Amino acid sequence: MKSSFARPCIERLRPYVPGEQPKISGLIKLNTNENPYPPSPKVLAAIRRELDERLRLYPDPTSDRLRARIAAAYGFRLDQVIAGNGSDDILTLCLRAFVDDGAFVQFPRPTYSLYPVLTQIQNGKTREIPFDDDFALDPAAFDARASLTLVVHPNAPTGTPLPQDFLRELARRLKGVLVVDEAYADFANENALALARKARNVLVTRSFSKSFSLAGMRLGFAVGDAALVEALFKVKDSYNLDRLAQTAGVAALSDMPYHRRCVARVVRTRERLRRELERRGWRVVPSQANFLLVRPPGRPAGQWLGALKIRRILVRWFDQPETRDFLRITMGTDRQMDRFLSVVDDLG
Amino acid sequence: MKSSFARPCIERLRPYVPGEQPKISGLIKLNTNENPYPPSPKVLAAIRRELDERLRLYPDPTSDRLRARIAAAYGFRLDQVIAGNGSDDILTLCLRAFVDDGAFVQFPRPTYSLYPVLTQIQNGKTREIPFDDDFALDPAAFDARASLTLVVHPNAPTGTPLPQDFLRELARRLKGVLVVDEAYADFANENALALARKARNVLVTRSFSKSFSLAGMRLGFAVGDAALVEALFKVKDSYNLDRLAQTAGVAALSDMPYHRRCVARVVRTRERLRRELERRGWRVVPSQANFLLVRPPGRPAGQWLGALKIRRILVRWFDQPETRDFLRITMGTDRQMDRFLSVVDDLG
Repeated sequence: MKSSFARPCIERLRPYVPGEQPKISGLIKLNTNENPYPPSPKVLAAIRRELDERLRLYPDPTSDRLRARIAAAYGFRLDQVIAGNGSDDILTLCLRAFVDDGAFVQFPRPTYSLYPVLTQIQNGKTREIPFDDDFALDPAAFDARASLTLVVHPNAPTGTPLPQDFLRELARRLKGVLVVDEAYADFANENALALARKARNVLVTRSFSKSFSLAGMRLGFAVGDAALVEALFKVKDSYNLDRLAQTAGVAALSDMPYHRRCVARVVRTRERLRRELERRGWRVVPSQANFLLVRPPGRPAGQWLGALKIRRILVRWFDQPETRDFLRITMGTDRQMDRFLSVVDDLG
Repeated sequence: MKSSFARPCIERLRPYVPGEQPKISGLIKLNTNENPYPPSPKVLAAIRRELDERLRLYPDPTSDRLRARIAAAYGFRLDQVIAGNGSDDILTLCLRAFVDDGAFVQFPRPTYSLYPVLTQIQNGKTREIPFDDDFALDPAAFDARASLTLVVHPNAPTGTPLPQDFLRELARRLKGVLVVDEAYADFANENALALARKARNVLVTRSFSKSFSLAGMRLGFAVGDAALVEALFKVKDSYNLDRLAQTAGVAALSDMPYHRRCVARVVRTRERLRRELERRGWRVVPSQANFLLVRPPGRPAGQWLGALKIRRILVRWFDQPETRDFLRITMGTDRQMDRFLSVVDDLG
């Protein structure tokens, strides 16, 4: 017998590390980009109505009611929509559908740290495109022959948006698939949905985790060309979304006024925190997401992380060359951000 | 741009076809091996208690409470347990962790028709081992060099158990990983858990869909050697189980008396139906699952399928050489089986 049964690429793999999900309460949790406001009461009511002996039955394998809602809400046909167990599920499907063994996958650096992990699991080759000092990207820096190109708009962990003309030009140049991961796009001024409606090689992925306050339900989707969506359907698990998650998604999309109010509050808080931190001499990267990447003054970011944690405030620090001097701060409620600022002033 | 962006192995793929999930009610649904009894009331109550603003927060990425319950219930250490979004999720993880591009995967024929699909998605090679006429298997018929060997105990769609000495001998011969898919094992006389506790190359997968009446929640798990489980953890989605599914699993395992009563009722119904059909001249394959594979007399099985459907009874027919003469009938309630028998008598 072999010493290890895992594939060599899995043996070598350093897995993705999710942000800490503390099991104690009373912390101010600004570390994993969750929404500080609860999901719509209509979502909780809809799940409650679904909660009966029907749980013994398999869910709809293709999530038709949910996909019909998504199609109507975002302006796509039903065959241009796939729903997944979080947008991470959708990203995994993209790798499995489009990336052959040894093929290459490109994405900016720094970006969502799951991408290199998914590429390695698929035994693909990774190509990273550095942002310039203003967190901008040149379409010519991307290799047209990549099987899959992944970009986040607005980018994580920087919060910076990708201009629409950049995305159009990038899609035009690429011979492979472009995935625009729009987990945070509801907090941004623009999005790539129009591009996904038109281009044959573009998928936009979305998440209910952030702007719909449903991280706990695992709900995401992708929209784009029907042939791309069909390929994702071929590789998805037969029943990838449970009955309650499908119900939650339908209900969330039926209460858009609530959704828009929560998003607007988070955006207002973000702009206020930006001003407050800049006033205190912190560098704040211009963000259109529900978080700010900030460079604190006075002491290394890694030390700020620890000092804040002792004061029961969790933020995120990515120990990579490009991000080592920064903290990523998820928007909490205004009261939580006041507390954060008062701790900052104490520590300052 | 290419005419298709999908990998060649995906382009060629004929996807798995789940059993029909009818959107109309009033049917007797004996086609997808669901449990006819509702989940434990304690499961519904536990989900209801979890249903609040915490849905805005990510779930525990490693499902620790659920895994601890599974470990205690089945006699494993925590690091020998992984939980998944249905046991299909776990099976997908096994392919991605253990099967390199072009490596080969073997399984009996006929068996769970998802296996060749998962193998193709992974661009692996398929080797099928035919059952003999009594639905038995010879360990020597398997190739020791397969990266992954998948067997279902009791097998689907036959319901036939795999003897323990066969499984031990098979595990001993194989140089790769053996997965014993025990989706139906709660309805059987024996199981492979003792083998999974001992052998370095054996994983047992389980599902909450059938014996715990939770197909709608998507819950499964695998137990076995810690190094195998670690490889599965490396490839799983970061948050593969939502908060309510984790809660449902914990609650289901906390009400084992209810579980055992439901299983015992299904087994009694199976034995009664077997006798009734044999009395009517049907061939019934000896089953230890929650379904019977039966060869009806008088007209081709495909015609029975249609005739039953017109009478609002759904069963499953697999149009493959080995199974074309058979129907697979999931155990319903006793009243549903009485109705089925009365329709059979009408049609006979």
